[in-house]
Amino acid sequence: MSASSIDLAVIPGDGIGPEVIAEALKVLEKAVAAEGVELKPTHYELGAEHWLATGETLPDAVLADLKTRDAILFGAVGAAPGDTRIPSGIIERELLLKLRFSLDHYVNLRPSRLYGTVGSPLANPGTIDFIVVREGTEGPYVGNGGTLRAGTPHEVATEVSLNTAHGVERVVRDAFRRASLRERKHVTLVHKHNVLVFAGHLWKRTVEAVAQEFPGVTHDYLHVDAATIFMVTDPSRFDVIVTDNLFGDIITDLAAAVTGGIGLAASGNINMDRTAPSMFEPVHGSAPDIAGQGKADPTAAILSAALLLDHLGYTDAARRIEGAVVADVEKRDGTARSTSAVGDAIAAGL
Amino acid sequence: MSASSIDLAVIPGDGIGPEVIAEALKVLEKAVAAEGVELKPTHYELGAEHWLATGETLPDAVLADLKTRDAILFGAVGAAPGDTRIPSGIIERELLLKLRFSLDHYVNLRPSRLYGTVGSPLANPGTIDFIVVREGTEGPYVGNGGTLRAGTPHEVATEVSLNTAHGVERVVRDAFRRASLRERKHVTLVHKHNVLVFAGHLWKRTVEAVAQEFPGVTHDYLHVDAATIFMVTDPSRFDVIVTDNLFGDIITDLAAAVTGGIGLAASGNINMDRTAPSMFEPVHGSAPDIAGQGKADPTAAILSAALLLDHLGYTDAARRIEGAVVADVEKRDGTARSTSAVGDAIAAGL
Ligand SMILES: CC(C)[C@H](C(=O)O)[C@@H](O)C(=O)O
Ligand SMILES: CC(C)[C@H](C(=O)O)[C@@H](O)C(=O)O
Repeated sequence: MSASSIDLAVIPGDGIGPEVIAEALKVLEKAVAAEGVELKPTHYELGAEHWLATGETLPDAVLADLKTRDAILFGAVGAAPGDTRIPSGIIERELLLKLRFSLDHYVNLRPSRLYGTVGSPLANPGTIDFIVVREGTEGPYVGNGGTLRAGTPHEVATEVSLNTAHGVERVVRDAFRRASLRERKHVTLVHKHNVLVFAGHLWKRTVEAVAQEFPGVTHDYLHVDAATIFMVTDPSRFDVIVTDNLFGDIITDLAAAVTGGIGLAASGNINMDRTAPSMFEPVHGSAPDIAGQGKADPTAAILSAALLLDHLGYTDAARRIEGAVVADVEKRDGTARSTSAVGDAIAAGL
Repeated sequence: MSASSIDLAVIPGDGIGPEVIAEALKVLEKAVAAEGVELKPTHYELGAEHWLATGETLPDAVLADLKTRDAILFGAVGAAPGDTRIPSGIIERELLLKLRFSLDHYVNLRPSRLYGTVGSPLANPGTIDFIVVREGTEGPYVGNGGTLRAGTPHEVATEVSLNTAHGVERVVRDAFRRASLRERKHVTLVHKHNVLVFAGHLWKRTVEAVAQEFPGVTHDYLHVDAATIFMVTDPSRFDVIVTDNLFGDIITDLAAAVTGGIGLAASGNINMDRTAPSMFEPVHGSAPDIAGQGKADPTAAILSAALLLDHLGYTDAARRIEGAVVADVEKRDGTARSTSAVGDAIAAGL
């Protein structure tokens, strides 16, 4: 694609969300301007603060409007942990997860890369460069389940994980396709099929079947518990991981930690069929404890903007952003810089 | 308790199971003999090899017989990953999980401690000394779920997590009780209540309620994804973690990795009501790749034997085993020793 403008929905959200998104927009705008492309952002007020002010999470009209945009840049949402005015999880489920589900973001793409000098907590991290393709629209995240006899000694609470051939196959095929374009061409399925037999076997059978379509791609399997061990003892072994919504949530936070922290972890919630706009967001949350102080690291938001450009087909601009980030990150020596100073430095390095 | 003999069921299992159990028995026998207690072991042939030979996983008569013992020492079960003769997961579910569920092992106790010189993969691990109290009899492990239209493009697979007030409350109370006996007296609930609302809220409400009974114990909450980050960036923060069956499975493998590997990780599957024998096992698996070579580290099995003695009330003997293990581990310099050499050294150090 190479339109002369990008019609971008921007959801800055709460806490540090607006601060990091401002820097991502700064970098994004400059990166596409160099190619004669104009960035046309439309801001949407959504999140915990907005809920407190209006009682709205994601009104239908806003969702309909978002669907008309080319892509969505999302900051972070969520109230301070101690804030009891907001029912727990409501913003996460009725805004963030509702967007992922309504816009059919079935590929939750989370790259993990250790940049030269960035501090990993591991003594010998080695070379880390893998992507996690996390399923984004089913599994234990569907919100099915219930509570019987709540608050009594006879309470029963259920959670139902829903997994479909349709949902698993499309994300597994995406993982193999991405692997086929990488150097090592290797897919690792992470699940727990020895316990979660029904879902696990669907995933395993699907991987075996889809692998036939990609003779150049090798694949193996790890139980999720074993995968967390390798994540800290031998993260270099991973190339492309494909996994379900919940396991993906867990191992991508761990992966972010071993590659220098969630200040750097970018993600895309991607609808590969392009029936609705995809959404790009840093993996980190709204970090209310440091909000408004200009302390937040905007790098994850900026790298998410690069994933956004990749998705829209502006791959040159995406590579230039990544290059500028790598150059900046490799120079870091622990000296504190403000959010906007980091954004300025990366923008200058484009 | 201070009987003059211990009627011990021993299930060595497959792969390295029999090798590490032999060393655990050696140490156990010597430790209790010093207190005038006789160890009376009864061996049970169960596991993947036994299934291949007989088609039996856990016959009712064997289960009934196991129920008459004081405790069970369990090695490891499971076939080689490539062995297609054994339906995947059958030994795990119909033997190991069946034992945990049938004997109501609701406290799956997994201590994590970093011993002085033992190699953690972390650059700055700090002091690590926490226990995970993993629920052992419900959650996503119940085996509820199913498959509709298997093998077709319309397949749907479900997994149902079952959580009861009874099941959650007893394990949460156990965690608080254990915390009240420790120095830091702190409980961290690990769950994902912003997404798994029904189960998550049952866990949260239960923790709040049980906390009232333990005014001296503080508590906090972490989402499971955040918990994996702290496990590698700040494991010292943990004292007692209480969590569900699946999250406990995942974070205890990670915890074992950061404290020097699953060669050291012990566990107890404990029925605190003593309506059936408890079972003690190393966290590691049967490791078919190194089986029969005398290479396996028996330390996790030996530490599991110490947990067994604790449960039976032989706390002095348990402490002596732990002391001998710590002394041995602190002397380790990476020189390879055989399984029996490690067992001999620990036995000699009692
Ligand atoms: C905020 C929460 C609902 C979300 C998730 O669990 O997916 C977050 O942890 C993430 O990984 O994007
Ligand atoms: C073998 C498997 C069923 C088991 C589990 O998932 O509980 C193991 O991983 C463990 O942690 O003891």
